[in-house]
Amino acid sequence: MTLLKSWVDSANSATTDFPLNNLPYGVFSIAGGAPRCGVAIGDQVLDVTALENDKLLVIADSAVLQQAVWNPLMELPADSWSSFRTQLIALLEDGAADQDKLTPHLYALADVQLHMPMRVSEFTDFYAGRYHATNVGTMFRGAENALPPNWLHIPIGYNGRASSVVVSGTPVQRPWGQLKGPDQELPAFMPSRRFDLELEMGAIVGNASQGPVSVDEADAMIFGYVLLNDWSARDIQAWEYQPLGPFQAKATATTISPWIVTAAALDSFRVSTPEREFELLPHLQDTGPMLYDIELSVTLAPDQKAATTIAQTNYSEMYYSAAQQLAHHTTSGCPMRTGDLLGSGTISGPEKSMRGSLLEISWGGKEPLTLDTGETRTFLEDGDTLTLQGHAQGDGYRIGFGDCSGTLVPALEKPYSR
Amino acid sequence: MTLLKSWVDSANSATTDFPLNNLPYGVFSIAGGAPRCGVAIGDQVLDVTALENDKLLVIADSAVLQQAVWNPLMELPADSWSSFRTQLIALLEDGAADQDKLTPHLYALADVQLHMPMRVSEFTDFYAGRYHATNVGTMFRGAENALPPNWLHIPIGYNGRASSVVVSGTPVQRPWGQLKGPDQELPAFMPSRRFDLELEMGAIVGNASQGPVSVDEADAMIFGYVLLNDWSARDIQAWEYQPLGPFQAKATATTISPWIVTAAALDSFRVSTPEREFELLPHLQDTGPMLYDIELSVTLAPDQKAATTIAQTNYSEMYYSAAQQLAHHTTSGCPMRTGDLLGSGTISGPEKSMRGSLLEISWGGKEPLTLDTGETRTFLEDGDTLTLQGHAQGDGYRIGFGDCSGTLVPALEKPYSR
Repeated sequence: MTLLKSWVDSANSATTDFPLNNLPYGVFSIAGGAPRCGVAIGDQVLDVTALENDKLLVIADSAVLQQAVWNPLMELPADSWSSFRTQLIALLEDGAADQDKLTPHLYALADVQLHMPMRVSEFTDFYAGRYHATNVGTMFRGAENALPPNWLHIPIGYNGRASSVVVSGTPVQRPWGQLKGPDQELPAFMPSRRFDLELEMGAIVGNASQGPVSVDEADAMIFGYVLLNDWSARDIQAWEYQPLGPFQAKATATTISPWIVTAAALDSFRVSTPEREFELLPHLQDTGPMLYDIELSVTLAPDQKAATTIAQTNYSEMYYSAAQQLAHHTTSGCPMRTGDLLGSGTISGPEKSMRGSLLEISWGGKEPLTLDTGETRTFLEDGDTLTLQGHAQGDGYRIGFGDCSGTLVPALEKPYSR
Repeated sequence: MTLLKSWVDSANSATTDFPLNNLPYGVFSIAGGAPRCGVAIGDQVLDVTALENDKLLVIADSAVLQQAVWNPLMELPADSWSSFRTQLIALLEDGAADQDKLTPHLYALADVQLHMPMRVSEFTDFYAGRYHATNVGTMFRGAENALPPNWLHIPIGYNGRASSVVVSGTPVQRPWGQLKGPDQELPAFMPSRRFDLELEMGAIVGNASQGPVSVDEADAMIFGYVLLNDWSARDIQAWEYQPLGPFQAKATATTISPWIVTAAALDSFRVSTPEREFELLPHLQDTGPMLYDIELSVTLAPDQKAATTIAQTNYSEMYYSAAQQLAHHTTSGCPMRTGDLLGSGTISGPEKSMRGSLLEISWGGKEPLTLDTGETRTFLEDGDTLTLQGHAQGDGYRIGFGDCSGTLVPALEKPYSR
């Protein structure tokens, strides 16, 4: 596929995240106004809530874009997703008829505030990157036992906390927690000293399900993708995670990028999962390419200073696709709902420069990272701004996600009123 | 406290679950009608949605009881909870004025269908019963290492799946899952063969929070309690739970009793948590009696046959109160929301007859249980109906929860369409 030309000039650049081929869905407001649904195009956002009101867009018999979240579209059948996208392309393509009617509903992205694009129903986080799992396993259990026995047979995951998912730009406060160092006899309650990022992709469930679904059905249920930073307090996690898994270590915040990039926009970037050491059982087997070739990076900028790229990797490094994760999620009959968010797990790659967490980059704090400013990091410092970026590279265009960014602010001085 | 007399005669019995002292909140429908909010009184349910429409009950400026869930009341400040309860008592007490206006809105419980009393925002399940954790730990790791090192310092919990919470009476289908027996080289995908119950209480969060809360604040946030059966597939759990905790093993269903018994109704049954081996850190310390003296039992009835009581225990056997669990849940800054449901963890006691799961009763399947019908059980068989019951015993009255019941139906013959 090549660049689709739009009458919105800025959408025709080879470096914009948002050409006509993309059309990601977000929620925005302008100073003093109420949040509404918008579609990014070049350096503009199109107010589609207004277009639905004006009948320039017709999706269903009743209103779909009036709730300032995309869940009502997501829960419609997938042919409504395509017909909406087709209408958007027709309105925005080069030579389209209604340009004068649309122009009043375009706002400069630089002038708007972005909000959560969806109501997150439930959040599940996986652990499905082999390089990450191997790195972490090697640190904790030695190279011989790096991967748990189940790892090559099912996408290991745990339920996270939907209430803690925030949109890019929301400050993240260093958490307090109970933790115990290896040299301490008793635990203490204090601010986390090993606070970390995790570079992930998030898959968003559109259509709900009641019983188990196949990998193909799961793939068709996925509405779109976002970048996702699953902030993690490693010291709280180390103390709490046996035997029932991470809990408060992962509950402070999870930041997502503000634009839902649709599965449709990513379709020509599908790639296969890697060759497998053990064949998966039939219900989890790949039936086609269900990962995506998405280049990913993370920068770290200390308080107001220049940013350093600390990791560069690709979503195609994952061992399991989101469709396989979602199929596994339903095996027990677990109902899935519109707005469920599935984190991929940390996406690291084979090279040291491809590690998606400071835990791996600093090898558990033993090998500090030197930033371009000359400062070093083992884990995050107050004032650090972390920014995830990602895009699929087409022929003369790219499908970008926009920034997924968050700044770490100091812990509460005293977390309790008494 | 003694029995409060009501003009609804059946509420004045010493054995009804629902005297005037209780007034639990549910959602009901009568044949062909829409679900609405109801309050149980004796063998009747009072249609409070109709009373709010008729202005016989006034809670807030706008309607609170029109959504067929109790979340709108739960999110109001706690003084609205008390004023609503005070109005209900005034309407239903012996000698009340408006009996003739209320009578048309009373329905026999025997004639109504009960629904989920709330929208569950998120579901967290704890592991906070010492006898249960010790039993399970002994089976899996030996008596010396039964309790993990963190267990006596924090209430261990994990996030569950809100979408799988169902109301009493909903059939539960035996799940498929990936599992691997100790003598198998590779895992298989098959219906669970070690499907189990877990006898728990559920605490319901009323008022939301944004940052960490104290134990006292947490106690004040809890709106009420339900009985809770956290169905568990032990064989799926054994294969999947390392290193990130239970996932599909706990996602088939969690059954709750249909009536929310308010914290106000239980207030005179408060008891303290047990003496502690290690003093808790200040942010988790008890500040008063925050457990409740609630007698609990479970019966198992094979397909259409007589029920056997398989466990009898008490909520006061817990090591951590729901308030302590909720306070811990917020330590990292995790936002809590109206409608969050917190499972206590399995409530076992010191005696063998007090074990709240078949895993413990049959000691991992090694000591089959003989039912009154002569049949034996290690884990559940298709057709088994499990019923949890509970009540706080007052002087000549009791605060009951109603049945929390579910029947296990056979697994899907083939869980996938392809």
